[in-house]
Amino acid sequence: MTASETVEITGHLMDHGILSRVLDDIREYAGDYTIDRFDVGRETDDPSHAVITVIADDAEGLQRLLMRLQTRGVNQVDPGEATVAEADRDGVFPDHFYSTTNLETRVRIDGAWLDVENPEMDCGLVLERDADGKPVRVYTLPMSDVRTGMLVLTGAAGVRVSVPAPDASAEAFGFMESEVSSEKPQAVLVRQVADGMREAKAAGKKVLWVGGPGVVHTGAAPAMVAMVDAGYVDVLFAGNALATHDIESSLYGTSLGVDLAMGRGVEHGHEHHIRAINTIRKAGSIRDAVDAGVLTGGIMHALVTEGKRYVLVGSVRDDGPLPDVYTDVIEGQRAMRAELTDVGFCLMVATMLHSVATGNILPASIPLVCVDINPATVTKLADRGSSQARGIVTDVGLFLEQLAVELVPEYRRS
Amino acid sequence: MTASETVEITGHLMDHGILSRVLDDIREYAGDYTIDRFDVGRETDDPSHAVITVIADDAEGLQRLLMRLQTRGVNQVDPGEATVAEADRDGVFPDHFYSTTNLETRVRIDGAWLDVENPEMDCGLVLERDADGKPVRVYTLPMSDVRTGMLVLTGAAGVRVSVPAPDASAEAFGFMESEVSSEKPQAVLVRQVADGMREAKAAGKKVLWVGGPGVVHTGAAPAMVAMVDAGYVDVLFAGNALATHDIESSLYGTSLGVDLAMGRGVEHGHEHHIRAINTIRKAGSIRDAVDAGVLTGGIMHALVTEGKRYVLVGSVRDDGPLPDVYTDVIEGQRAMRAELTDVGFCLMVATMLHSVATGNILPASIPLVCVDINPATVTKLADRGSSQARGIVTDVGLFLEQLAVELVPEYRRS
Amino acid sequence: MTASETVEITGHLMDHGILSRVLDDIREYAGDYTIDRFDVGRETDDPSHAVITVIADDAEGLQRLLMRLQTRGVNQVDPGEATVAEADRDGVFPDHFYSTTNLETRVRIDGAWLDVENPEMDCGLVLERDADGKPVRVYTLPMSDVRTGMLVLTGAAGVRVSVPAPDASAEAFGFMESEVSSEKPQAVLVRQVADGMREAKAAGKKVLWVGGPGVVHTGAAPAMVAMVDAGYVDVLFAGNALATHDIESSLYGTSLGVDLAMGRGVEHGHEHHIRAINTIRKAGSIRDAVDAGVLTGGIMHALVTEGKRYVLVGSVRDDGPLPDVYTDVIEGQRAMRAELTDVGFCLMVATMLHSVATGNILPASIPLVCVDINPATVTKLADRGSSQARGIVTDVGLFLEQLAVELVPEYRRS
Amino acid sequence: MTASETVEITGHLMDHGILSRVLDDIREYAGDYTIDRFDVGRETDDPSHAVITVIADDAEGLQRLLMRLQTRGVNQVDPGEATVAEADRDGVFPDHFYSTTNLETRVRIDGAWLDVENPEMDCGLVLERDADGKPVRVYTLPMSDVRTGMLVLTGAAGVRVSVPAPDASAEAFGFMESEVSSEKPQAVLVRQVADGMREAKAAGKKVLWVGGPGVVHTGAAPAMVAMVDAGYVDVLFAGNALATHDIESSLYGTSLGVDLAMGRGVEHGHEHHIRAINTIRKAGSIRDAVDAGVLTGGIMHALVTEGKRYVLVGSVRDDGPLPDVYTDVIEGQRAMRAELTDVGFCLMVATMLHSVATGNILPASIPLVCVDINPATVTKLADRGSSQARGIVTDVGLFLEQLAVELVPEYRRS
Repeated sequence: MTASETVEITGHLMDHGILSRVLDDIREYAGDYTIDRFDVGRETDDPSHAVITVIADDAEGLQRLLMRLQTRGVNQVDPGEATVAEADRDGVFPDHFYSTTNLETRVRIDGAWLDVENPEMDCGLVLERDADGKPVRVYTLPMSDVRTGMLVLTGAAGVRVSVPAPDASAEAFGFMESEVSSEKPQAVLVRQVADGMREAKAAGKKVLWVGGPGVVHTGAAPAMVAMVDAGYVDVLFAGNALATHDIESSLYGTSLGVDLAMGRGVEHGHEHHIRAINTIRKAGSIRDAVDAGVLTGGIMHALVTEGKRYVLVGSVRDDGPLPDVYTDVIEGQRAMRAELTDVGFCLMVATMLHSVATGNILPASIPLVCVDINPATVTKLADRGSSQARGIVTDVGLFLEQLAVELVPEYRRS
Repeated sequence: MTASETVEITGHLMDHGILSRVLDDIREYAGDYTIDRFDVGRETDDPSHAVITVIADDAEGLQRLLMRLQTRGVNQVDPGEATVAEADRDGVFPDHFYSTTNLETRVRIDGAWLDVENPEMDCGLVLERDADGKPVRVYTLPMSDVRTGMLVLTGAAGVRVSVPAPDASAEAFGFMESEVSSEKPQAVLVRQVADGMREAKAAGKKVLWVGGPGVVHTGAAPAMVAMVDAGYVDVLFAGNALATHDIESSLYGTSLGVDLAMGRGVEHGHEHHIRAINTIRKAGSIRDAVDAGVLTGGIMHALVTEGKRYVLVGSVRDDGPLPDVYTDVIEGQRAMRAELTDVGFCLMVATMLHSVATGNILPASIPLVCVDINPATVTKLADRGSSQARGIVTDVGLFLEQLAVELVPEYRRS
Repeated sequence: MTASETVEITGHLMDHGILSRVLDDIREYAGDYTIDRFDVGRETDDPSHAVITVIADDAEGLQRLLMRLQTRGVNQVDPGEATVAEADRDGVFPDHFYSTTNLETRVRIDGAWLDVENPEMDCGLVLERDADGKPVRVYTLPMSDVRTGMLVLTGAAGVRVSVPAPDASAEAFGFMESEVSSEKPQAVLVRQVADGMREAKAAGKKVLWVGGPGVVHTGAAPAMVAMVDAGYVDVLFAGNALATHDIESSLYGTSLGVDLAMGRGVEHGHEHHIRAINTIRKAGSIRDAVDAGVLTGGIMHALVTEGKRYVLVGSVRDDGPLPDVYTDVIEGQRAMRAELTDVGFCLMVATMLHSVATGNILPASIPLVCVDINPATVTKLADRGSSQARGIVTDVGLFLEQLAVELVPEYRRS
Repeated sequence: MTASETVEITGHLMDHGILSRVLDDIREYAGDYTIDRFDVGRETDDPSHAVITVIADDAEGLQRLLMRLQTRGVNQVDPGEATVAEADRDGVFPDHFYSTTNLETRVRIDGAWLDVENPEMDCGLVLERDADGKPVRVYTLPMSDVRTGMLVLTGAAGVRVSVPAPDASAEAFGFMESEVSSEKPQAVLVRQVADGMREAKAAGKKVLWVGGPGVVHTGAAPAMVAMVDAGYVDVLFAGNALATHDIESSLYGTSLGVDLAMGRGVEHGHEHHIRAINTIRKAGSIRDAVDAGVLTGGIMHALVTEGKRYVLVGSVRDDGPLPDVYTDVIEGQRAMRAELTDVGFCLMVATMLHSVATGNILPASIPLVCVDINPATVTKLADRGSSQARGIVTDVGLFLEQLAVELVPEYRRS
């Protein structure tokens, strides 16, 4: 027996093909629909509003379809009340758990709406009640952190999401909306990223960087150091490789075999990087190596001396790794989540792995720009649900050089 | 004061540009050289032999240069005796530790030569003596596994490496030697990979696969299942993604939003994959899910039912992950190393991360073919020191389909 | 003073983001709009209908915006009568000439609607009147072919276009609609392309191939020969390179230095290809070389012996070229246009240059599939206005091999 | 019966793997060899010298192998005298014609050595004798330009080539020698290209640019205009696209739909570019449009007003084309050749087609740098025989911006 529900969505539905994607989703889930009402914005800036009845083969299929549609900002007209089930074992959600989006979310419990803390996609929602059974908070929780006895939302009932309003900043990045291309006027893009960072700082927010070793290989470390010193890098998410090659470069003047001063490259620096790691392990940590005067330059040095934060998370291809690296990736994810508070702008540079990892945990409300010479990185990010991601396909070294010139007036490469 | 040492190398030095790379290395390390002797192979198949004096600025620089040259198969004419130092803290090698290659290695201790167990690049060499102080064994050890009191080789003295002799199998892959290109007669390549696998099996060796989720996305899972069933997949190294999308595909008929039967794709399957992971976590493990009849098809199911081995190692971008996944990457590396015994052929498919990780721990003596639509994967592997890697830039789905047709006569896609 | 016009569009406007693109276009041309009416299709298969008033800064801007919107299938509600101006010099259109789309087009002249012959984008429309001044025909004409005195349509008045109805074949390719990706179940795609060709042949239509030298380099020539012999290649558009490497391969067993039998590759075959060209020039033409028994195998040989058509157009990087090659690109375009009659399916393989060239002259009503290992080829084709193009990012050699197996039952690679 | 010949080669044979490639060539041509003598350079800077006997299956195979080896700089120890044959029809070389390299070449005729004029690869060598039969000159001639009765060299006898000595400039580019990579310290590369241009100008030589439309799309036109004005662009080779998009951008402020001022992109500017072409055709030529005040800015305008040269050669995908474009590609090649005199440096930017076309006709002695975001462009150039090509994989817009800052002190983007 089929099941149906009436849903609605408001916004610039046609401008960005949102409604088209909503209908695609319904077909993808083998559902059907009728459009009950469609009020189109008459003028350019007016939002549209659609009311749609969606039909699925059965109640479970309908619930899953409704969750899917929420990733587009589609809510039930009459959401009802949330239902919960108790987790009956650690690390496992109850059946039919509500799977989260990265949008701002509210949940109706006992007739009242609660804001969900720290929106994040692909998690569950946990309801906390006080001693009297009164709802206290609802928060996202990744599957691996759920514990027996927690109350986890099931089904899509009682949940509403809000798509972030396109603000001035989003407007500025409008040019990047629909396409990933290397054929764009790049100098304009540099200025717009700089503006995004300045606005975040002006609003008292933090700027989060996510970087790969290409930052060092392309010779952009001095530019990044200048931006750290000027206060435009509050937090860095990276892996063992960026930090190792940065440190190797400071200790030996090389980076995986690229001699930066002379511009000569070789295949693999071999023992340079493994020896650099050993040196830091011997010191105890990157901070210890800075304090002991062993490490005297580079990006990691700048972060330490400027009192900035970094989270390094390991991967299976790591040598060493550096003592600061989280070798357990789930612990690493927790450490990353802990740094997201007050982030107002995120720049991802030259790393697919850490960009996707950060996209996974970042609320959709945080502006996000991804810079890579490889178009696939940007595409993958958007495909994985970071719909706010704006991509710039360009050379990372020249981009960061230009960005430093834009942001740090006194920065001039000698 | 400069330091110098006389080294030698034997082989088809000019055929493959080896000598040219040796001289590049010397310059890279700011060293100098004179070629004392060069006996060139007169006929096509004769090996050449060169004796070279290398000069460095100081003794430490010389030792590091000698280690670097060993990655090319260059040994000291008079290697002398190995020297060792005691590790004085866990996870840290002594200063000037010998950094390993992935070549077959022998070490001279107390006048006798010992074969190094399990060659692996970027590790240290640990000497074990018995109660009487007599040398018992020398083995590679990754930095994170060294413990206080272990005897670790320092400097390049007393170490000899051997470059694997190019055998018939290597000859067969000669065409791929110098270049990574998508413009190659692909059908011939399929047959040669099949031959490599058959030879390994005929010699009683194991075939190791390293795979990414593209195996599932390109619709190649049925082909891979056929090869598992036919005995051509003894071990699989992968991450959370391949296993999750394979299982998602079995449970829901989708893979990250690609409906395989209809060939329709969507951006992101969203809750399909996270729900698939929860299902397996609830079952306890992949094997438990197979035993319970929850998981009834796909690659992981085939591996379990055929009694084959797999090592899944997590990464920072993972959702869940599946209960079988090593979330600690260093423990994951240990589990991978434990499966390398008797591997006689390695095929890497559609994953840069796990291919590089496996290349890191694989001896140079094991034939290695890497298949990816992205030329960068293959290039990176070779650049990182897996000089035996042969690359095929092609479509993974069609390649595995053809490989199954070649290896499994009864395999025909319905 | 602003100028405005009321336009309309009918179809699955939201399903494929068409309306969103229409509104983007208006903004791009600095115009404004109000949506006067929007009747949304209630059920999944119902078309929608929109009536929009568009406003531009002046009359000329409005006319240009209206032409732009016609590329989306947007027509004026009250198109009025077409206006014409006489060309006053050869090779130059009158000011404000109507710039064509590749859609089916009708023009109202003297109160009657005439179908435009051979739709093609970026051309002008020429009106032919008989001795009495009665309109006889309207046809597209490229700029370089216009002659003094011809009557050329100006402005957008009196012109209506029709977007091709999505038919069964289009439905079959629906999966490829929105995305270019190498992560697709490729075996399914092969079958669907084969079905597209079979349907075209069954309907008495011709199959047009557009190919680059990668067809030869990937070893796919035998597969393509089999498909020529089986009647699935009626016309081939290519450049000097495909034909030269095919002929070089037949004469010398090589293709730009790739020895196909052994799978060995070198950088550049050097004198092989230039000598192959000289041999054909000496014979007079490819056909002469076949007749004289000089050329006895390969793709070009198969086309000649099967009596199929080919148009080879030169480029600035050509050596030679072969005597059959059009060295004048405008003449080459004319020769290509002459072969388009009755084409019912077009497959483009491994060439960006000739794919874009063919896309330029192909009506939007002809199904078009583009196969390339490089995603940029497919993207560029769609960006240039061939909105019907469906892309498959895969290995050309394996794809053609599979396609031959699918289409030609007796084809089995020995 | 086999045929053999003794050849020699001098230079840094092992440093750059030259000897390895020579031996590969011999095997590729199914030949055999013995190394008779090998004097290795003892010190780092000493050249090596090898004497090799090469054996082929027959005399014709030997001659072809000897021609192949000359592309590596390998000459016969005893070259003998050149032999010639008369062309017996227009556009066709005699059998066994000598196929040229792009190296400096001398030919021995009647006992005396003549320098070959304008070295170019894949051509024939034509001998001119005066009325008395005395040799006057030897020059390269492309196949299509040969005329009946011309004397054309046959076989490899009597021909010697010289590999250009690696000079200071080559040294500066040494870092780029063996690899094409986006992971290089880009800022250093910018400076080195600037130095190469300055050196060429200081030596009274011309700087040749080869460009694609990406120059305009990436917003680099102002940077290029500044370099034209400052005298760093003497000649431009391009196609219809670069000139059209540059002119479109000047006339309408767009480039194939990219609004440069706002950074917004659309798919296809549609009628902008076709209307821009019509405007120039109406004016008569680009120069006429500048003189008439129709075209007032951009790259083409700068070239015209600064009195610089340009050669635009058409391709099969062209709309229009502009009246200045050579529609016959062979005539276009001739026009390009005519501009090569005194070129001392060549920069190729964002075009595979025109880069390969220019590489085809450029002597190996002219330094050549190729900049593209696509690694395949650079690789293809080297594979086609332009061994002097140095590649930089980077963003063209940012690269040219930086290059202008480096070369033109007063240039600052407002």
